[in-house]
Amino acid sequence: MTLALIDYMAEKRVWFENQLPLVFQGTPVTPKLKQAMLYSLQAGGKRIRPILLFATLTQLGKSEELGLSTALGLEMIHTYSLIHDDLPAMDNDDLRRGKPTNHCVFGEATAILAGDGLLTAAFQVIANDTKIDVSSKCQIMGMLAIAAGPEGMVGGQEDDLEAEGKTLQLEELISVHRRKTGKLIRFPVEAAAVLAKATETQTAALVRYSEHLGLAFQIGDDILDIAGDEKKLGKPIGSDLTNQKNTYVSLLGLEGAKEKLSQQVNAAIGSLREAGLEQGYLADLADYLLHRTY
Amino acid sequence: MTLALIDYMAEKRVWFENQLPLVFQGTPVTPKLKQAMLYSLQAGGKRIRPILLFATLTQLGKSEELGLSTALGLEMIHTYSLIHDDLPAMDNDDLRRGKPTNHCVFGEATAILAGDGLLTAAFQVIANDTKIDVSSKCQIMGMLAIAAGPEGMVGGQEDDLEAEGKTLQLEELISVHRRKTGKLIRFPVEAAAVLAKATETQTAALVRYSEHLGLAFQIGDDILDIAGDEKKLGKPIGSDLTNQKNTYVSLLGLEGAKEKLSQQVNAAIGSLREAGLEQGYLADLADYLLHRTY
Repeated sequence: MTLALIDYMAEKRVWFENQLPLVFQGTPVTPKLKQAMLYSLQAGGKRIRPILLFATLTQLGKSEELGLSTALGLEMIHTYSLIHDDLPAMDNDDLRRGKPTNHCVFGEATAILAGDGLLTAAFQVIANDTKIDVSSKCQIMGMLAIAAGPEGMVGGQEDDLEAEGKTLQLEELISVHRRKTGKLIRFPVEAAAVLAKATETQTAALVRYSEHLGLAFQIGDDILDIAGDEKKLGKPIGSDLTNQKNTYVSLLGLEGAKEKLSQQVNAAIGSLREAGLEQGYLADLADYLLHRTY
Repeated sequence: MTLALIDYMAEKRVWFENQLPLVFQGTPVTPKLKQAMLYSLQAGGKRIRPILLFATLTQLGKSEELGLSTALGLEMIHTYSLIHDDLPAMDNDDLRRGKPTNHCVFGEATAILAGDGLLTAAFQVIANDTKIDVSSKCQIMGMLAIAAGPEGMVGGQEDDLEAEGKTLQLEELISVHRRKTGKLIRFPVEAAAVLAKATETQTAALVRYSEHLGLAFQIGDDILDIAGDEKKLGKPIGSDLTNQKNTYVSLLGLEGAKEKLSQQVNAAIGSLREAGLEQGYLADLADYLLHRTY
């Protein structure tokens, strides 16, 4: 990871996180519900999805401000998915990023509602943005619903539930991940292309980049679960193994998974090259996935 | 209830219900998730919210077809709220409209995802509609998010959770219901006004109508819980009393609640009169709330 990328990610993360408390400012939201939504929304994380959106806008010569509401909506949807994922009926997790999960703090009923509230308000935040032309805004809301809904993330989570206790083939695992995590990695890149009114060639290359990146991201997560830094991750390592989850490491071995990760990162950078976008944060972000420890 | 309204409601319900299986047709949705979403979406009910939208469009001289995607999205959101409401961590209900609730059939994890999927796909259905101009479409998606989200229904559900075990004042109860159920009764009327490009005067009068109607609807529900027809309702009567819920009947008594219902219905019809819309299905719908038995 180049120093420039480290600085860029830190700077954009701080800028973005400063906007989060404003999301529900001035809107008549029940105090406990607001607290529950903000608790998870402000619980940290790398903000990789918003940063991908900002980096893509920058490389296309546009200001990050143009993508702020889309990035907020996206992060709200990512956050709701974590809240619902952690519920007793789902993964039943007590800790997330080293902090008690939403239902452990606010109770299960409020956690369900906080998730529902974040998901719904994501569309409100984008719809309210007067800086985006209505045509792009409609397109982006439709894309977000596809990426996050039954065809995308929610469908992938159901696939994942149904795969429990089964050993998947590599192609099946890739298909689950493409929906469960890949679509919300692809979305910020594609949304930035819409907002920046990128050419068709640029958009197609960026979409290919984001698909390789999404896969690389998931393979990296699986590797970290075995070989990551427990303190930095904020959760115990080896949990996939204990839970007998299908992962790239369980299917390909640690070395095989590392090789697959390297292939995907190279393919991601190759896609950028096709659109003449190989110099900049997007290539650095792909490269960063090879070396991250958390 | 006039014969004309009975016929209109039956006809529109059948037309609308025939569109429901098409919502996920041709889209790559996991079979079990699709089945779970359609199970609840097709579980019946009066379809009062879509019918309100169609009736408003008709009175404003527009075709019901114009409101189809909005009505579908709205019903998907209403349905998701019932699925999540019935969950063990919420109301823990086993029966809804005489049928086992979603989590009893598909398991709790899939029921949570089916709810999330319906909520997300609601925005997709509206965003995909090419018959509506993009400006109205954006406005409608924003309005729906407000009506259904933390400022609206989800916020009202949290209010309701927090009111458990407390005795509310009448004004507090009205405030809870305005958000929990009122906003999704107001939405179809207001959305129809946007779609039909109604005048400001018409829109303001219609919004007042819908607010009185929403309150009347809730008071009617509370009355039916005491005095309704168990077989037609598909659930045992008296459950609000058993669960010590705050209702208009518990606060005002049965006769007091009936009087309040009658006042709200009259006020709803009065609002229509201000916009010269007192002849037609909207007034009939308000009147119907006085006499319904389920």
